[in-house]
Amino acid sequence: MLLALYLIAITAEAMTAALAAGRRDMDWVGVCIIACVTALGGGSVRDVLLGHYPLTWVLHPEYLWITAAAALLTAIAAPVMRRLHRLFLFLDALGLVVFTVIGCQVALQMQLPITVVLVSGMITGCAGGVLRDVLCNDIPLLLRKELYASVSVVTGGLFIGSQYLGANLNASMIGAMLFGLVFRLLALRFNWQMPKFVYRDEWR
Amino acid sequence: MLLALYLIAITAEAMTAALAAGRRDMDWVGVCIIACVTALGGGSVRDVLLGHYPLTWVLHPEYLWITAAAALLTAIAAPVMRRLHRLFLFLDALGLVVFTVIGCQVALQMQLPITVVLVSGMITGCAGGVLRDVLCNDIPLLLRKELYASVSVVTGGLFIGSQYLGANLNASMIGAMLFGLVFRLLALRFNWQMPKFVYRDEWR
Amino acid sequence: MLLALYLIAITAEAMTAALAAGRRDMDWVGVCIIACVTALGGGSVRDVLLGHYPLTWVLHPEYLWITAAAALLTAIAAPVMRRLHRLFLFLDALGLVVFTVIGCQVALQMQLPITVVLVSGMITGCAGGVLRDVLCNDIPLLLRKELYASVSVVTGGLFIGSQYLGANLNASMIGAMLFGLVFRLLALRFNWQMPKFVYRDEWR
Repeated sequence: MLLALYLIAITAEAMTAALAAGRRDMDWVGVCIIACVTALGGGSVRDVLLGHYPLTWVLHPEYLWITAAAALLTAIAAPVMRRLHRLFLFLDALGLVVFTVIGCQVALQMQLPITVVLVSGMITGCAGGVLRDVLCNDIPLLLRKELYASVSVVTGGLFIGSQYLGANLNASMIGAMLFGLVFRLLALRFNWQMPKFVYRDEWR
Repeated sequence: MLLALYLIAITAEAMTAALAAGRRDMDWVGVCIIACVTALGGGSVRDVLLGHYPLTWVLHPEYLWITAAAALLTAIAAPVMRRLHRLFLFLDALGLVVFTVIGCQVALQMQLPITVVLVSGMITGCAGGVLRDVLCNDIPLLLRKELYASVSVVTGGLFIGSQYLGANLNASMIGAMLFGLVFRLLALRFNWQMPKFVYRDEWR
Repeated sequence: MLLALYLIAITAEAMTAALAAGRRDMDWVGVCIIACVTALGGGSVRDVLLGHYPLTWVLHPEYLWITAAAALLTAIAAPVMRRLHRLFLFLDALGLVVFTVIGCQVALQMQLPITVVLVSGMITGCAGGVLRDVLCNDIPLLLRKELYASVSVVTGGLFIGSQYLGANLNASMIGAMLFGLVFRLLALRFNWQMPKFVYRDEWR
């Protein structure tokens, strides 16, 4: 089941990436590259930082093809995407919580400290989107809006907490993902935001 | 011979990087740093992602000096560079195909799957330029123009294909590099472009 | 003593990062993320490039909490910060030289070549700030102004030089850090700058 969710998640991330690339007038190869970086970048950054080799896409190169294919289909079907707005946001939220739980799980299996497990989930969930925004020369969205990172922290915290309390692995995964998904969708629906820190000065 | 080509390639990349840094008014240390990141960054990203330690410049720190020296010479000789426009584009194209073949070769020696070999070539050929553009706060050029990434894919594919067909290592290297070089120069000459994916929307 | 200096350094870097994040209207989670990336990113990039696992914050996850707490306190106390301008620049300079010496020391212990030791110090001292600027979508400051990278090179060179001449470890550390600190403060005070390489062209 986790594999099915993972495949949905990388597909959804590839689709968001393709639309972001289209906003920047990238060519078809650029669209595929951005899609692969977005969908597989979070896991790659995590694995490199934790020294967890080989990376997912080195073991399973078919994920690269899935991602590239999803991006090209999105580019072709972009006008229809507009009408699938809600489905699209739903898949993106699903991707976030699935990646977060997978990231936590990898760090748990490496028996790392609990803070690192939480950070591993955040990196897996969020770093792909950050890389996408850096390559598209935007200020990373997650640092500014929409509780994206917060949803990842809460999902990861819930998963780790229930694991430490001895809950069944599948139960804690599904519970954490469901809660995170609902939290994210509510945040989008009611436009919840974290307070911002606004600072202006002259010296630098 | 591959070493000679590699040295020409890092020199050429250092020169492109120095000119990019000059457009952004960087100081001399910044010029050297951008040059090292551009010339050695592609190989470093590849080695980190594949877990292929130690990195090239850790084994051969003299490459750092060569790169920095080439960048400083370029900064000094910038007015003359303008007239060497064609030589410069030629060296840059040579760098792309040499890096691509070297990247494929590294992954082949690690006996990685064929898709990963192709990606390894692309990363080695292109990631340095992407890092340069990110540090200079541009949208990476390769994602938008000039078949840069496509040339890398074609060169890598040709090299891998002829290797699988049992061709001699040197012959497949030279063949793939020559073909890629000609392809790139023709693309520049006739301004070939991949179709672009242009997408505009309001929601995000 | 080095540990105490290291803790001061990551705190100072977290503070600079929080102010940079505030200039870009990031939310509280974004401020913490930027602070962790800035304070611990230099060391992480070094460790990943040198294959020096596990990373500092994986071994000592408490550093993540210290950094995040320093960033939040800075965000709360931002109006007061303005008056602490000089203290702040002093701490930032201290962070630079401490990180540089620690980075050199890590590479020395891995018995890497002398050029790599110098580069390791520079990466540790400067990469965190570069990551901060890339995530905030600025052109990295260090590449343009204020002798930041140069101070790191000089500090590292002095430390390595005195080590090779057989000086006591603590003495060379303190000497190099003191010299680098004074150099940096003088550079700030008298607005020393490296010559810039300014280049304009039409073709690209």
